[in-house]
Amino acid sequence: MSASTQAEATTPGAIEAMARAARVAARTLAQSPTVERDKALWAAANALRETRDVILEANAKDLAAYKGSEAFRDRLTLTPERIETMAKGLEDMADLSDPVGRILSEWTRPNGLKIRRVATPIGILGVIYESRPNVGADAAGLCIKSGNAVILRGGSESFHSAQAIHAAMVAGLKAAGLPEAAVQVAPSTDRQHVSDMLQAAGLIDLIIPRGGRSLVERVQNEARIPVLAHAEGLCHTYIHSAAEPQMARRIICNAKMRRPGICGATETLLIDSAIAPSLLPDIVSDLRELGCAFRADARARAIVPDLSAATEADFSTEWLDAILSVAVVDGVDAALEHIAVHGSGHTEAIITSDETVATRFLNGTDSAVVMWNASTQFCDGGEFGFGAEIGIATGRVHARGPVGLEQLTTFRYEVLGTGQVRP
Amino acid sequence: MSASTQAEATTPGAIEAMARAARVAARTLAQSPTVERDKALWAAANALRETRDVILEANAKDLAAYKGSEAFRDRLTLTPERIETMAKGLEDMADLSDPVGRILSEWTRPNGLKIRRVATPIGILGVIYESRPNVGADAAGLCIKSGNAVILRGGSESFHSAQAIHAAMVAGLKAAGLPEAAVQVAPSTDRQHVSDMLQAAGLIDLIIPRGGRSLVERVQNEARIPVLAHAEGLCHTYIHSAAEPQMARRIICNAKMRRPGICGATETLLIDSAIAPSLLPDIVSDLRELGCAFRADARARAIVPDLSAATEADFSTEWLDAILSVAVVDGVDAALEHIAVHGSGHTEAIITSDETVATRFLNGTDSAVVMWNASTQFCDGGEFGFGAEIGIATGRVHARGPVGLEQLTTFRYEVLGTGQVRP
Repeated sequence: MSASTQAEATTPGAIEAMARAARVAARTLAQSPTVERDKALWAAANALRETRDVILEANAKDLAAYKGSEAFRDRLTLTPERIETMAKGLEDMADLSDPVGRILSEWTRPNGLKIRRVATPIGILGVIYESRPNVGADAAGLCIKSGNAVILRGGSESFHSAQAIHAAMVAGLKAAGLPEAAVQVAPSTDRQHVSDMLQAAGLIDLIIPRGGRSLVERVQNEARIPVLAHAEGLCHTYIHSAAEPQMARRIICNAKMRRPGICGATETLLIDSAIAPSLLPDIVSDLRELGCAFRADARARAIVPDLSAATEADFSTEWLDAILSVAVVDGVDAALEHIAVHGSGHTEAIITSDETVATRFLNGTDSAVVMWNASTQFCDGGEFGFGAEIGIATGRVHARGPVGLEQLTTFRYEVLGTGQVRP
Repeated sequence: MSASTQAEATTPGAIEAMARAARVAARTLAQSPTVERDKALWAAANALRETRDVILEANAKDLAAYKGSEAFRDRLTLTPERIETMAKGLEDMADLSDPVGRILSEWTRPNGLKIRRVATPIGILGVIYESRPNVGADAAGLCIKSGNAVILRGGSESFHSAQAIHAAMVAGLKAAGLPEAAVQVAPSTDRQHVSDMLQAAGLIDLIIPRGGRSLVERVQNEARIPVLAHAEGLCHTYIHSAAEPQMARRIICNAKMRRPGICGATETLLIDSAIAPSLLPDIVSDLRELGCAFRADARARAIVPDLSAATEADFSTEWLDAILSVAVVDGVDAALEHIAVHGSGHTEAIITSDETVATRFLNGTDSAVVMWNASTQFCDGGEFGFGAEIGIATGRVHARGPVGLEQLTTFRYEVLGTGQVRP
C-alpha cells in the first residue's frame, strides 16, 4: 500500500472517480462475449495460484497487525488450500451458463411491434464485506460473469490481502482484454469510503453487504441506493399434527444442528398441540444428544418440564447457536401468526403429510423461501442449483432468497418495429 | 373530513399505524382468490358511478380552494366523463389475468427437492401523487388486482376528491369481503405524512411517486425504502446512415410531436453525418410545419443555417415541449456515446435498415427501453400490452420501463421435499 494511494483515500470523490471509471468499463463488459468473461475467470484463477506466495505474504501482514478474536482471526487467515478454493470457485463460475442476453419473454403486438425482455447486467455493484478475504474473489468473479462492474470494500483488517487478491482479478481481466476498471477496490481503509459508496446514487446501482448483522443494518440504514441483503435469518420449522414423526425428528435435528451458525438454521420450533405430547419428548432427547439447549414456552414445558423457560424476546432472537426456541401452537393458522409476528422473512418450513395444510402454509407466509418436508438449511445457492451465490436476500423487490447469477442481472425491453408510429 | 381525523394527522405514528393495519390486510389480500379481487374492482367501479355527485361535490370543494395555474386546475378537475373513465379503468383491470400465483420457474434437484418460483404480491405500496385525483383510483385498482395493500397520499389540493374516491374503493373491498385496510389514504394534508412514508422501512415495501420531477427527486432523495419511478425521460432517436428516409421522417415527427409533453417523447435527434445533408432539411421542414422549434449543434446548423444554436445544457434538457435538440454524429458508437453522457436511461430509438448496426445499438444502450424503427412514444404500458400501468421506471433493479401488474409482484421460492435433510 503506497503512501500515495493512502493519500488518495482522503481525496474527496475517490469513490466517485472509481464509479465513473467503472461505468465506462461496465459498458464494455456488458457487451463482451461470454467467452471473454469466462476467459477472465480462468486467467484470474491461474493468477491467484501464481501469486499465491504474494497473497500469503500480504495476508501475513494483515494477521500481524490483527488484534481481534480468534474466530475472527481464523476467518481472516488465508492458506494455500483456501487460495486454491478461491481459484477453483472462479473456474466453476466460468462453467456456468451466461446469465446475460437471455430472452426472458417475447411477444408481438397487433401493430406488428415485436417486444422482448432481455437480461442485462445491472451495471455497477458495490460490495462491502468483512474479514473473509475470499469474498473479494467470489464477488468479483460473480460480477465479471454477470457482466457487472464492481467496487469492493473489504474490512480494514484484511486490507493487504484484499489488494493482493484484487491484483489477481485484474490480471484475469487483462488477459481477456477486458477493462481493468471492471473490478476495483477502495484505495484505503478510510471508513469514509463506505459512506461514499452508500450515498453514491446514480454512480453505484446496487450495494451488497457481506458480513455480520451490524454491518448489514448500518448499510440498510445509510444507503441511498438499493441494498441486497438479509439482516437476520430467524427461520421457523412448524411440525403439523399430520407430520410423519420419524421425518419430523430427522428434519428438525438437521435444520437446527447441522450448522447452527448459518442464516438458514431453524431458530424456533413450532409444534402442533395435537402432536406435541407424543413427539416433543423424542425431539428434545434427539437434540440434547446433539448438544442443543432450549427456550420453551409454558405449554412445551408442561410436556417436557425440564426445558428452560423462554421469554417473549427469545422468540425474536436469532441464536446462530445450539439453542432452539420452542412453542406449542394450535394449528397452521396459529403457526403462521407466530411467524408473521416473529419471523424475519428468510425461510420457514412445515412438516406434514397433509397437502391442503401444506399449501395453506406455503401461501400463508411471505418469507423469501418456504419449504415443505425439508430442512431449512437447504436455503443456499448451491443447494438450489445456482452454482454460486453472492448472498441471501430478504428484501421484497428484485432478488429474494439465495442470489445467484441470474439475479445479478436486470433486463431491458427491446422493441423491434418496421416503421410504426403511435396513433 | 372530520376535525378528529385532521387531529389524527398530527398524531405521531399515524402512518405507522396505517402500515401495520395494511400488513394484516395484505396477508388476507395475498391469499384471496382472483375472483374476490376482481369482484372488488367491479364493485368499486359501481361505487364510483353511484357516488358520482358526492365525488364531484368534494372536487368542487378542492377547486374552490385552489389558487394555482390553469393547466394544473384542469388536471385537478373531475367531470362525469372522467369519473366514468376511472370506473371503466377498474373494470378493465378486472378483465386482466391474475399476476399472483404464476409459477415463474420450476426445477428438481438431484436429491429430489422440487423448487419453484411463484409470483407473490410485494406487500405494501406507498403511492405519493400530485393533482390528478384519478391516480388514486388507478393505483388502488392495480394494487388490489396484484394483491398489494396500498397507502395513498394525494396532493393537498386534491384532498377532498381523494377522500371521496377512496370511499368508493373501500366500498368495493367491502362488497367483495376483502379487508378495508387494503386501501388507505393519508388522514390529512400534513406534509409530515410524506416524510413518514419515505422513512417507513419495514412498514412500507415500495414507494411509487406519481408526479412532476421535483416530487420524484424529493422522494428519491429522502426515501429509505425502494422507489419505483423515473425522474426524467430524456429520450433520443438516432437516425443512422442506412435509415429509410421516409420512415425516418415519419417516426421522428411522431416521436417528438405526437404528444411533446409525455416522458416517452424524443427530446434529442441524433442524425448521422452520412445522411444529415440530404435528410435533415426535410426533417426540419416537416417538424416546423407541426410547430416544432430546434436547438442544434454547429454541424447541424452548417446544413440548416437558420436553426437556433444549442448550448451544451440543451442536450441535457428534457423539454417536454415542442422543442427538439439536434446533433450530428459520426456513426452508431458516437450516438451511443452521446446517449451515455446525456441520456436518462428511459427510452432510445435507432432508425436503420442495417440489422448489424441496429443490434449494436440495442446492446449498446443501458436504457430501460430501446427501439428499432419505431417511435419512442410507444414506451407505454398500454402500447406494450400490459393493459394498465402504474408508471414508468428507470431504476436498474426489479422494474424497468412501463410497470404493469406483473412488476407489482415479487416471488417466493417454494421447496417441496419428501423429508430431505442437508448433508
